[in-house]
Amino acid sequence: MNSPARISLDQLNAMDAAGFSAALAGVFEHTPWVAERARADGPFKTVTALHAALMDTVRTAPYDQQLAFLRGHPELADKVAKGLTAESQSEQGGLGLNSLSGAEFERFTKLNAAYREKFGFPFIVCVRRHTRDSILRVFEQRLHDNAGAELAAALTEIGHITRLRLIDKIDGPGMPKTTGRLSTHVLDTLNGRPAEGVAITLHEVGESARGLIASVVTNADGRSSKPLFENVPLRIGTYELQFHIGAYFAAAGAKTSDPAFLDIVPIRFAIAEPEGHYHVPLVASPWSYSTYRGS
Amino acid sequence: MNSPARISLDQLNAMDAAGFSAALAGVFEHTPWVAERARADGPFKTVTALHAALMDTVRTAPYDQQLAFLRGHPELADKVAKGLTAESQSEQGGLGLNSLSGAEFERFTKLNAAYREKFGFPFIVCVRRHTRDSILRVFEQRLHDNAGAELAAALTEIGHITRLRLIDKIDGPGMPKTTGRLSTHVLDTLNGRPAEGVAITLHEVGESARGLIASVVTNADGRSSKPLFENVPLRIGTYELQFHIGAYFAAAGAKTSDPAFLDIVPIRFAIAEPEGHYHVPLVASPWSYSTYRGS
Amino acid sequence: MNSPARISLDQLNAMDAAGFSAALAGVFEHTPWVAERARADGPFKTVTALHAALMDTVRTAPYDQQLAFLRGHPELADKVAKGLTAESQSEQGGLGLNSLSGAEFERFTKLNAAYREKFGFPFIVCVRRHTRDSILRVFEQRLHDNAGAELAAALTEIGHITRLRLIDKIDGPGMPKTTGRLSTHVLDTLNGRPAEGVAITLHEVGESARGLIASVVTNADGRSSKPLFENVPLRIGTYELQFHIGAYFAAAGAKTSDPAFLDIVPIRFAIAEPEGHYHVPLVASPWSYSTYRGS
Amino acid sequence: MNSPARISLDQLNAMDAAGFSAALAGVFEHTPWVAERARADGPFKTVTALHAALMDTVRTAPYDQQLAFLRGHPELADKVAKGLTAESQSEQGGLGLNSLSGAEFERFTKLNAAYREKFGFPFIVCVRRHTRDSILRVFEQRLHDNAGAELAAALTEIGHITRLRLIDKIDGPGMPKTTGRLSTHVLDTLNGRPAEGVAITLHEVGESARGLIASVVTNADGRSSKPLFENVPLRIGTYELQFHIGAYFAAAGAKTSDPAFLDIVPIRFAIAEPEGHYHVPLVASPWSYSTYRGS
Repeated sequence: MNSPARISLDQLNAMDAAGFSAALAGVFEHTPWVAERARADGPFKTVTALHAALMDTVRTAPYDQQLAFLRGHPELADKVAKGLTAESQSEQGGLGLNSLSGAEFERFTKLNAAYREKFGFPFIVCVRRHTRDSILRVFEQRLHDNAGAELAAALTEIGHITRLRLIDKIDGPGMPKTTGRLSTHVLDTLNGRPAEGVAITLHEVGESARGLIASVVTNADGRSSKPLFENVPLRIGTYELQFHIGAYFAAAGAKTSDPAFLDIVPIRFAIAEPEGHYHVPLVASPWSYSTYRGS
Repeated sequence: MNSPARISLDQLNAMDAAGFSAALAGVFEHTPWVAERARADGPFKTVTALHAALMDTVRTAPYDQQLAFLRGHPELADKVAKGLTAESQSEQGGLGLNSLSGAEFERFTKLNAAYREKFGFPFIVCVRRHTRDSILRVFEQRLHDNAGAELAAALTEIGHITRLRLIDKIDGPGMPKTTGRLSTHVLDTLNGRPAEGVAITLHEVGESARGLIASVVTNADGRSSKPLFENVPLRIGTYELQFHIGAYFAAAGAKTSDPAFLDIVPIRFAIAEPEGHYHVPLVASPWSYSTYRGS
Repeated sequence: MNSPARISLDQLNAMDAAGFSAALAGVFEHTPWVAERARADGPFKTVTALHAALMDTVRTAPYDQQLAFLRGHPELADKVAKGLTAESQSEQGGLGLNSLSGAEFERFTKLNAAYREKFGFPFIVCVRRHTRDSILRVFEQRLHDNAGAELAAALTEIGHITRLRLIDKIDGPGMPKTTGRLSTHVLDTLNGRPAEGVAITLHEVGESARGLIASVVTNADGRSSKPLFENVPLRIGTYELQFHIGAYFAAAGAKTSDPAFLDIVPIRFAIAEPEGHYHVPLVASPWSYSTYRGS
Repeated sequence: MNSPARISLDQLNAMDAAGFSAALAGVFEHTPWVAERARADGPFKTVTALHAALMDTVRTAPYDQQLAFLRGHPELADKVAKGLTAESQSEQGGLGLNSLSGAEFERFTKLNAAYREKFGFPFIVCVRRHTRDSILRVFEQRLHDNAGAELAAALTEIGHITRLRLIDKIDGPGMPKTTGRLSTHVLDTLNGRPAEGVAITLHEVGESARGLIASVVTNADGRSSKPLFENVPLRIGTYELQFHIGAYFAAAGAKTSDPAFLDIVPIRFAIAEPEGHYHVPLVASPWSYSTYRGS
C-alpha cells in the first residue's frame, strides 16, 4: 500500500535496462530475468500491458526456469519465522499469518510439507486475496491437483501477486483492477422507502476468522455512507452482514410481536472474486426479508 | 409431562369435595381454597372450562388472599437450592435452571431481591413457556411495571402455569391448547421444485442458550418429516435455522462461484407465542433467498 | 366425462374377446386390432397396466399399420364440421374448438393442410390437455419436426388421449393420473399472517383465451377453500392470477399512498404439465411482493 | 413546455410593477392582483421563494376574492370546446383531454355540473400531474368533500399548476421540483448477476389509459440506458411494466418447462407522487420473482 518509491510508467519506460530491472525488483521475487526480458516489449502504454508482458515472459519460459522461479518463493508457514521480501512480509501481516495459533501453524506446516513433497515447489497463493480459512481451503484442494494443473494454478497466483505489487510501485494509465467492493442497501417494505438508521455490522466468519470488520449505519438512502471494507482489500472468504432491523422497525412504530419476530438479521455469504462488486441488499418488513447478489 | 395419577374429567366431576381438592393439589401451589371454591361451578364439560373456573376463583378473590397466594410461590432462583412442588422441580429441570452458572445464578438472585422489594411477592413466570434468555428479559421488563400491572402479569403467568399442570393431571374433552409448532419448507427456485435432501439444524441462540435443538433433512416435498421440536414445548426465545443449501445446489449441479455465494443460510427469528404455529420457509436459488412468517 | 357404460376392470378382465373389444371401442379410434392384441397380456391388475398394454401394442405394430391408424384420426379443424367419435366431439366442445372465429378456423385449416402434406397423416394432439393458444403453438412447433420425431410425438399424444378416454370407461385399482391442480396462498408480510378475504381471479390469457376461469376469496389460512379449476382439467396454456391486495391492505388499515402503490397484483404463468401440481403463492406487503412455483 | 419568452429571475426582480405583472400573466389565470401584491415581498432569491410568495398572496386573500379567483378558471370538460389560456390548452393536449370519446366527455360534463352545483366554482386539478383515469378518480372523491376541505384542495392544485407554469417562464436558482422519475433494474438470481438484454415495456393501464409509453432493453448493468418517461412528466395513475424474462432465460440456456413457467412478467403499480422517484426492480429466476418499491 505505502510505496515510498512509487514512480510513473513514463519514468519506467524511459529507464535503461539496469534501471528498469531495479525499479521492478521485488515484484517477481529474486528473479531479475523476468523484467529484463519483458523490457524488450516496451515502451508500455498501460500498467496492464506492462503486467501482461511480465507474465508472458514467465509463462513462455522453459519449464526448468519456471520451476526454479517457483522454488525461489518462500514457504507460506515459514514466512512467519524467516525473512521475507518486504512485500511478502507486509502482505502476511495484514492477514495475521504472523500470529497464527500453535494448531494453525502446525496445520500450515503439514500442508506445506505434503505439497512440496508432491510438487517439488512451495505452495504459492496470493495472500492478499484470501482469508486464513480460504487459504487452508484452497491449500487442501490444490494438494489433489495433478502436476500440470498445479503449475498453472501457481502461475495464476503469481499473476495476482505481481499485479498487486506492480500497482504499489508504478503509477500510470490503464491500472489493472485491484480490489472490488462490498455494498449493501436496506429497503423497508412496510413503508415502501429506504430504511434509514439501520445499524449493520460486517463479520468475517469461519474457524480462523478475524471477526468484526466494520460497523455502519444506513443513511437516508438506506445505504452506508462509508465503505464496508475501508482501507483493506476484499478477500476470498465467508462473511456475515448483521442488520439490526428489530430496533429500526420498533423506532418506526411498527406493530410486531414481543420479542419481535425479526431482530438481528444475519446474511452469510462468500466472496469468491476479490476484484468483483458484491452488492448484498436486504429487503425487509418486520415479518419477512429477502436478499440476493445485486449490482 | 409424566403424570402417573392422570384421571378423566368425568372421574373428577364425580368426586366429593375432598377428592376434588386432592386430585387438583399441586396445580395451584399450596392453595386448596382455589379448587374448593371453583368446584361449586361444576360439573365441568371441558378441561378448558374447569381451568377458567379455577382462574376466575383466583381473579375474583380478595386482594389480601391473592397476595398470600402469590407469596406462596417459590423464588425463581431459590428453586434450585430449596424444596419445590414436584411440578416446579420438573419444570425448572427441563430448562436447565437447576444448573445455572455462578454469574447467571447471581443475576437471578439480584433480580429476585429487587422484585420482591418492589412488589412484595416473588417473581412468577411460566418457565415452561420460556428460554433462560427470555426469562431474564421479561424479568427486567416487569421490574419497571407498576403494582397493578404487575399483579395482572403475575396472574396471567399463573394462568399459563396451571393450564399446563392441569393438562398433565386431567384428561377429557376440550383440552386447552398447550404447545404450538415450528415448521419449515425449502423451495428451490433454480428448478422450480421443493428442495429435497437439504440438511437443516435448529439452534437456540442467546447468552444462556441451549445451542443445537434439532437436526433434520428435507424430504421430497422440501419439508422435515420429523418435527423440529420433538417431545419438547416451544419456548419464547431466539432461534436460528441453518439451511445447508450450498451442498444441496452443488449436488444438483448448479453453476455457482467457488466458494459458493451461499453455503449455510442462517435465519434468526424469535418465538413470542409458544402456543402458535411458526412456519419459517426458505425460498432460495444459489444467489438469492427469501423468508417470511408463513402458515 | 360422462360415461353411462362405465364398467369395472374385473368385469373387463372376465369378458371374452368380442366383449373386451366392444367395451374399449372408441378408445383407439376405429382400430379394433389394438384391443384384440392387447387382451393377450391380460388379465390386468391395474387400469395403468391395461393402458400400457394397449399403447405397447400400438408402439410395436408395423410401421404401415401405425400409419393407417394415425390416418384414421380426424383433422383437428375438420372436427368441427364433420362427424367425430362421440369422445372427440365432447373433448373439442369443452375447449370451444367448435366455435372458432373465422380467422382461427382458417389458421387451423392452413396448418392442417401443411401438416398433412408434410407427414401424410393428420395432426394429432390431446385437446383435453391444451388451450387453443397452446394447440396453435405446438402445431407450429411440430410442423418443423422430422418424420421420425413427429411419429413419436403423435404416439405420445395418443397415449394422453387414450389414457383419458380409458379412465372415462373403466373403473378399477391403479387409475392413471388424470389432472393436476392449481393452488395459491396469500401471506401478509405487514402483519406476519395469512391474508384473509383477498379476492382472487384466475384468467386464461392469450390470443384465443377463454378469459375469466374462476373467482375466489381467501379463507383464514390465506388459501382458497374451493379449487381454482373446478370440474375442469388443467390445460397447457398461459394464465394470470389477479390478487386484489389493495382492498385487503386498505381494510387492514395499512398506511400506503393514494392511490395505493399496489392494488391488483397480476401473476402470469404457464402450465406445461396438466397432470402436475402448480402452487403459485403471493407473499406481499403494501409495497412489495414475491411469488414462486411452490409445492 | 416551450416558452419562447423565458426570462431570468434577475430580470424579473429588476422589473417595475407593470413589467412584473406582465411577465407573470398566464401563471395565475386572469388574476393580475396576485403578481401585483406578491411583488412587495421581492426581490426573490429563488424561484421557489417567488412561487411561495405568489401562493401566500392567494392563501391570505379574503374569501370572496379567493372565490372569484377560483371561478375564473375554465371548466375541465369545457376546456375542450372553448377558448383557454394558451397554457391550459397545451396542458390538456398533452393528456388527450381534447380528444375524449363521447362517453368520457359526457362523464366529465356531468361531474363538472355536479361539482359546480355543490361548490360554486369549477373543478380545478393540475392536469399535468394526472392521467385521465386518476382525474376521474379524484373528481369523484372530491365531490364528497365539504366546502372547506375542497377550497383547500383547489388551492393545493393551483399551487401545482402555477409551480409548473412558473418553471416554464422563469429561469433561476432554486427551481422547484417538477417531475420525478421511474427506474427499473433486472437481477438474474439464476446466475447472480444483472440481467442484460431483457426487453421491457411500460404501459399506462386503466379505462381511459394511453397504452404503451416506452419500450426499452436492459444494459449490462440490468438497467435501462434511456429513461422510461422520456420528455414527458410522470403522472398519477396506474402503470404496468412488462419484463420479457422468458426470452432472456431461454437465451441464457436456463432449463425450464415448455412453455416456460414465466415468460412476460407484468408488474402493475400506481404512481401517487409525480415528483417522487419510483424504482421498481425485478429480481427473478425462471421460477420465481420479487419486486418492491426501491430507491
